[in-house]
Amino acid sequence: MTGDALRYASVSQVESPDSLVAHFGPERPLVLDSGVALSPFQIAYQTYGTLNAARSNAVLVCHALTGDQHAANVHPVTGKPGWWSTMIGPGRPIDTDRYFVVCSNVIGGCLGSTGPSSVNPATGQPWALAFPLVTIRDMVRAQAMLMDYLGIGTLFCVAGGSMGGMQVLEWAASYPERVYTAMPIATAAIHSAQNIAFGEVGRQAIMADPDWRGGRYLEAGVRPAQGLAVARMGAHITYLSESALHRKFGRRLQDRAAPTFTFDADFQVESYLRHQGEAFVERFDANSYLYVTRAMDYFDLAGSHGGVLANAFRGSKTRFCVASFSSDWLFPTSDSRAVVHALNAAGASVSFVEIQSDKGHDAFLLDEPELTATTGGFLRAAARMRGI
Amino acid sequence: MTGDALRYASVSQVESPDSLVAHFGPERPLVLDSGVALSPFQIAYQTYGTLNAARSNAVLVCHALTGDQHAANVHPVTGKPGWWSTMIGPGRPIDTDRYFVVCSNVIGGCLGSTGPSSVNPATGQPWALAFPLVTIRDMVRAQAMLMDYLGIGTLFCVAGGSMGGMQVLEWAASYPERVYTAMPIATAAIHSAQNIAFGEVGRQAIMADPDWRGGRYLEAGVRPAQGLAVARMGAHITYLSESALHRKFGRRLQDRAAPTFTFDADFQVESYLRHQGEAFVERFDANSYLYVTRAMDYFDLAGSHGGVLANAFRGSKTRFCVASFSSDWLFPTSDSRAVVHALNAAGASVSFVEIQSDKGHDAFLLDEPELTATTGGFLRAAARMRGI
Repeated sequence: MTGDALRYASVSQVESPDSLVAHFGPERPLVLDSGVALSPFQIAYQTYGTLNAARSNAVLVCHALTGDQHAANVHPVTGKPGWWSTMIGPGRPIDTDRYFVVCSNVIGGCLGSTGPSSVNPATGQPWALAFPLVTIRDMVRAQAMLMDYLGIGTLFCVAGGSMGGMQVLEWAASYPERVYTAMPIATAAIHSAQNIAFGEVGRQAIMADPDWRGGRYLEAGVRPAQGLAVARMGAHITYLSESALHRKFGRRLQDRAAPTFTFDADFQVESYLRHQGEAFVERFDANSYLYVTRAMDYFDLAGSHGGVLANAFRGSKTRFCVASFSSDWLFPTSDSRAVVHALNAAGASVSFVEIQSDKGHDAFLLDEPELTATTGGFLRAAARMRGI
Repeated sequence: MTGDALRYASVSQVESPDSLVAHFGPERPLVLDSGVALSPFQIAYQTYGTLNAARSNAVLVCHALTGDQHAANVHPVTGKPGWWSTMIGPGRPIDTDRYFVVCSNVIGGCLGSTGPSSVNPATGQPWALAFPLVTIRDMVRAQAMLMDYLGIGTLFCVAGGSMGGMQVLEWAASYPERVYTAMPIATAAIHSAQNIAFGEVGRQAIMADPDWRGGRYLEAGVRPAQGLAVARMGAHITYLSESALHRKFGRRLQDRAAPTFTFDADFQVESYLRHQGEAFVERFDANSYLYVTRAMDYFDLAGSHGGVLANAFRGSKTRFCVASFSSDWLFPTSDSRAVVHALNAAGASVSFVEIQSDKGHDAFLLDEPELTATTGGFLRAAARMRGI
């Protein structure tokens, strides 16, 4: 099985938008935190670079809520560069000349991995809300099965930001022996009440759309586009900082000298948000949005380790590089500091940087020199130790 | 005219939910910033305390986005205490034994003042989106006409928080000779790009509801309850602080020991938000929500004074008491500091306090001892100077 997969594992694939897919049949169910055994299921993934003979240079990149496996190639739907193309590529921190990079679509997602828009084999119809709820740990379980499928034992690094960072922390907690280094960026070990609240508003916006139809919109040939757009607009504000919004848009009017005294998008920031909402519905499934936000809400790495976060990392030999951004109010530095304190309490190896940036949470997706310098340096040093 | 109004102006009215209404006929149109002359129109208002013979003890209280004129009496719809009953009453900072307090529903509102749910005399149908857009200055113009109607020249104080504070600042800028003291609380002179963005998400949530029907839902006998509830849920998060949400709810589950692995309101914070959304639609009109948020978005007291905020206050003899709350991220202390700097630059009399509180923007509505002590002391000192 791994032979086929690895045949495509080359840098040339950066230009190919079509994902590889790993199929897991009845003999290999995904046993979820909810107790449900999901089977069959599949995981869609992209790879960049080449796995070395020792199989020691694999990097797993984990995507955020609305991300996908297209981390470093042109996105097949939007035509835009991959979401972490600033971080992944030849000579970049996650150097595809040196590492074999894998990025897979999360379970519950909508770009090729099994999720609520997949066909339920029991009915022949899309799962919709009959799809079992998944957790961050379930996403990581599925990724671990993908690593088995690819013949990768220990990952040189697991890296990701936001929800991707949650997966990084879960990997380090669940499979410490398989994670040589971990880079959780702009993330948290415990999803906050405020973030649960934002998630719930997005879900309610989707469910309030009559075209959602109790989740069975695909069978009806419709989509809750307006509800999903509203959810995205609200979430998008939380990805930026007040100062970034002020700098980008301020109170500038859209293509006019004076306000219209109407409900048109008078202000540039309104027009920008509407565009964000409209563009998002072209590439994302509303039910996946429900499932993946729910997975984030359930994430509590302290709660799942007796209420003590340090317990998640005791005895860990993984080297951690934790990074936060000063203007990120969705996953503020205090969330990262809590992770660092727990790692310190557990005696783990950890370096931490709060990167000064006014770009808010989204900074982890942008070309932030301090982020690339820090992560690049961390990985180069670890690679020397690892002999790759 | 004023005789009838004043007959009801007593503390006993605290127990009466029925508002007084001032009618303005064709001879007294409200000329709006948009250029439209709104006529006829009416303003619903409540009063507390008694106007003295010198007519020098009147306090105008201005309400916030989703507030109304029921500042210190039991609310006729919700049955709850008035929204500023901590601040207004016998012995309270805005002392009804000493002052004559007026609070009116803003123009564009939905509790008795003319707004989009009022009947358009030209059609005999509700105005809906044919109602002209109003600004904060228009709200203040209507209040000034109400003061004329009540025979009140100079107000001893104009006070309010959030959008109410915007009206306070506009009063001080537009009618400096009529404002002896001004208390703008938890507010801004310029609505920020982030707040415009939040306003736009709320409006889009309402307009996405098919029951909104282009604004003509009243004629159809329906209401966009789900869209308005989503708008309220999203806005409500911005009224609290992350720490307040954490303290109130944390990640506690709702009436159960373990997560349900469904989309039910597993977490208390979800249940709380849903309740906030549902309760709100019982007392607020969706089109008014559009109009009043739009009025806030247009507010830019610097922009309307040549781009220099201090110009709004030059030569002012008004005494200002500005207050902000340390954990308010919707109208952060930096917004209040900008007002204070402008007042200083204009040579105005100003005292300023940033109140330490973890309750977020909503703190201005809560029993905050430092707020009541500061405002009470400020008003007592001013009352001595004013000889009341």
